Amino acid sequence: MKQIIKNVIIINPYEEPVKGFVVLDGDKIDRVVSGEPEERADSTIDGEENWLIPGFVNTHGHAGSSLLRGAGDDMPLDTWLKTIMWPNEKRFQKNTVEAAGDLALVEMLKSGTTTFLDMYHLNMPEFAQKIADTGFKAVLGRGMIGLGSEDEKKDKLKEAENLIKNWHNQAEGRIVTAVMPHAPYTCPPDFLTKSADLAAEYGVLFHTHCAETAKETEQHIDKYGLHPVEHLHQLEIFKINVLLAHAVHLETEHIDLLKKCNVAVSHNPKSNLKLGSGIAPVVQMKQAGINVTIGTDSTASNNTLDMVEEMRMSALIHKGLHEDPASSSAADVFASATIGGAEGLNIPGTGKIAAGYKADFCLVNTKAAHLTPNLEERAVSHIVYAMKSTDIKDVWIHGKHMMHNRELLTLDEEKVLFEADKQAQKLL
Amino acid sequence: MKQIIKNVIIINPYEEPVKGFVVLDGDKIDRVVSGEPEERADSTIDGEENWLIPGFVNTHGHAGSSLLRGAGDDMPLDTWLKTIMWPNEKRFQKNTVEAAGDLALVEMLKSGTTTFLDMYHLNMPEFAQKIADTGFKAVLGRGMIGLGSEDEKKDKLKEAENLIKNWHNQAEGRIVTAVMPHAPYTCPPDFLTKSADLAAEYGVLFHTHCAETAKETEQHIDKYGLHPVEHLHQLEIFKINVLLAHAVHLETEHIDLLKKCNVAVSHNPKSNLKLGSGIAPVVQMKQAGINVTIGTDSTASNNTLDMVEEMRMSALIHKGLHEDPASSSAADVFASATIGGAEGLNIPGTGKIAAGYKADFCLVNTKAAHLTPNLEERAVSHIVYAMKSTDIKDVWIHGKHMMHNRELLTLDEEKVLFEADKQAQKLL
Repeated sequence: MKQIIKNVIIINPYEEPVKGFVVLDGDKIDRVVSGEPEERADSTIDGEENWLIPGFVNTHGHAGSSLLRGAGDDMPLDTWLKTIMWPNEKRFQKNTVEAAGDLALVEMLKSGTTTFLDMYHLNMPEFAQKIADTGFKAVLGRGMIGLGSEDEKKDKLKEAENLIKNWHNQAEGRIVTAVMPHAPYTCPPDFLTKSADLAAEYGVLFHTHCAETAKETEQHIDKYGLHPVEHLHQLEIFKINVLLAHAVHLETEHIDLLKKCNVAVSHNPKSNLKLGSGIAPVVQMKQAGINVTIGTDSTASNNTLDMVEEMRMSALIHKGLHEDPASSSAADVFASATIGGAEGLNIPGTGKIAAGYKADFCLVNTKAAHLTPNLEERAVSHIVYAMKSTDIKDVWIHGKHMMHNRELLTLDEEKVLFEADKQAQKLL
Repeated sequence: MKQIIKNVIIINPYEEPVKGFVVLDGDKIDRVVSGEPEERADSTIDGEENWLIPGFVNTHGHAGSSLLRGAGDDMPLDTWLKTIMWPNEKRFQKNTVEAAGDLALVEMLKSGTTTFLDMYHLNMPEFAQKIADTGFKAVLGRGMIGLGSEDEKKDKLKEAENLIKNWHNQAEGRIVTAVMPHAPYTCPPDFLTKSADLAAEYGVLFHTHCAETAKETEQHIDKYGLHPVEHLHQLEIFKINVLLAHAVHLETEHIDLLKKCNVAVSHNPKSNLKLGSGIAPVVQMKQAGINVTIGTDSTASNNTLDMVEEMRMSALIHKGLHEDPASSSAADVFASATIGGAEGLNIPGTGKIAAGYKADFCLVNTKAAHLTPNLEERAVSHIVYAMKSTDIKDVWIHGKHMMHNRELLTLDEEKVLFEADKQAQKLL
């Protein structure tokens, strides 16, 4: 199907805005053209002089725990885990996780996310089916804590493998899979190695939490004599494609090692702040040449799945921490939240408005006081420092129109919110 | 006039939510009642089970520079001042500042701000008139850099005094005035003293920038042998009511001094981060018992006037910096952004939904994925950690209905945006 979205201002991070139109060929962008289209298409949409921007790529999350938004805040991590997360997760049923997953899809779509990574231990094949059916694009992995009996660990790895077998490169390529052991401090070395072997066997991404808190990192060093980054390196896990979530507590040598081994990072600033985990050394990582992508983590610790908020936090916090406003640019952060994320997830041809790229993009309504003065040369600044995710009015993923004038076209938003409330009332 | 807003969930920071209605008597809240109203009123509005929350109080800003949003980012403060702020401000004409002020009013109202402080050197009487006419509530002061000839300085103080004479406690009490010398580093001691004398004479607030950047603070110490806080204290300025903006570079002794002298602070986290000024010691100030209010600063350095964003930033950043999630609570930060701000501005009877308080409040549409699960006991958490300012659908100030279903009732939004764009095009 040939679609045209005309009368838009096309914005990519490092490029001059183009006032013109995009032509889609099926799930891809065929051309980006300035001016007015004279040709015909199966569908032509007037963008009303709005911005057309790449969809956001959220590189770390746990959709299944979305019903815990606001269930517990402002408490130390240990207390939060022991009184909120774990007791609630024990009560989770199939309906709970399904409602949570749907809620996450609605929230992400309404805030302009077109691709996301999800790590969860429950209901992942069913979530994959939902994603396939509703047009989303995702990197999915069975979250695995490497504790328990040998049989339990085998079962987890088996489930992870089955997810890969059944879902890798499925749904017209919108779903890929990854191997996702929880973290070095919750997975013994042999479990990490087996996980990496599995990822290598199928050629998929290896994704894990790493050095999120100071305590966990120090305890890892006490136990193994190695920082978790050094430990993963010693286990030869960095020989495959790796994306680490958080990466807060790193020294220079760990940053150098990540760069040397071409490891990407998912920076989760709001979750790290809210849980008191700290502030990741993003300026140093970027200076070293590491691909620092952006992720929200889950609503249990954020409490939103809003990549616009996350991008803004990432853009602001490091300038203040280092007392250096020039330490990053708006374009850098916009790129991290789009094409950088796609590269970190090993999804080629995603994250940019250009010929040959997948048609994953958003239309942004620019008629708002907070986006005024609405001058083209200020567009990237406004996207990073002023736009609200609610300015996003339309979303396409792989050429499929997913949201129009903030109405979801493939999900029943009202029903999803109702079900989420209903299931949440059954929790603690 | 008697108004009733019924079928709402009334949320104050430290209180249990009340499912019921509020009765207004003129510009005040007469009663907050649970259940359904049986009485009649001149106007009854159905709140559709939404939250009714205090309006936000923005304690530091410069509306007149709003057209510089996105004009220059990601550069050191000196470069920014020399290449963006000052050359542009030199080109400002009456129309520029008027369009900027109107734009700020629209943005603040649409994001739920009901009271704000404004410091600016141009067009302040005209801005006061606009505020009087459109129903806003503000603390206004003629911003004064204490440099130039003696005549120039006298003129500035005269303008400041005239503003007080003409506008203090005007517009049914919605406008109060303050004396606002720019900063200790831009105002010599005698100018600061004269400003304080003026504030004392009329019994109005004294407001100034203080210790915003490390450089300015160090230079002040080099020049006077005193930290700016010590200097203001030595000049006996803390004998009157003082609100300091920024207060980023303070040591323990300065914090103790501010507490001892009952000085309030306007914390401007996003501006401080974006300009690389640093992160104010808010946890220590609050522990000392200082009233730390919240302000946005101007769009030239933020780049929004959105108190919901500012509140969230304030709630998150200090937890991460100190690696202590328990260092503040959602209720604390919500209070800082509402009643705490009103107290810092010396505006009694403002910032809370309670009998006898001014009717300054917002209705929040809670039917959104990012506010789900929508459980009453999670409301304060959601307001601070998940709500977007665009969830605010209605706003009242002093009992006047200012926004309904996001349509402004006293300002022509379309015209304001058009004029702001037009005037911005004339700048650099």
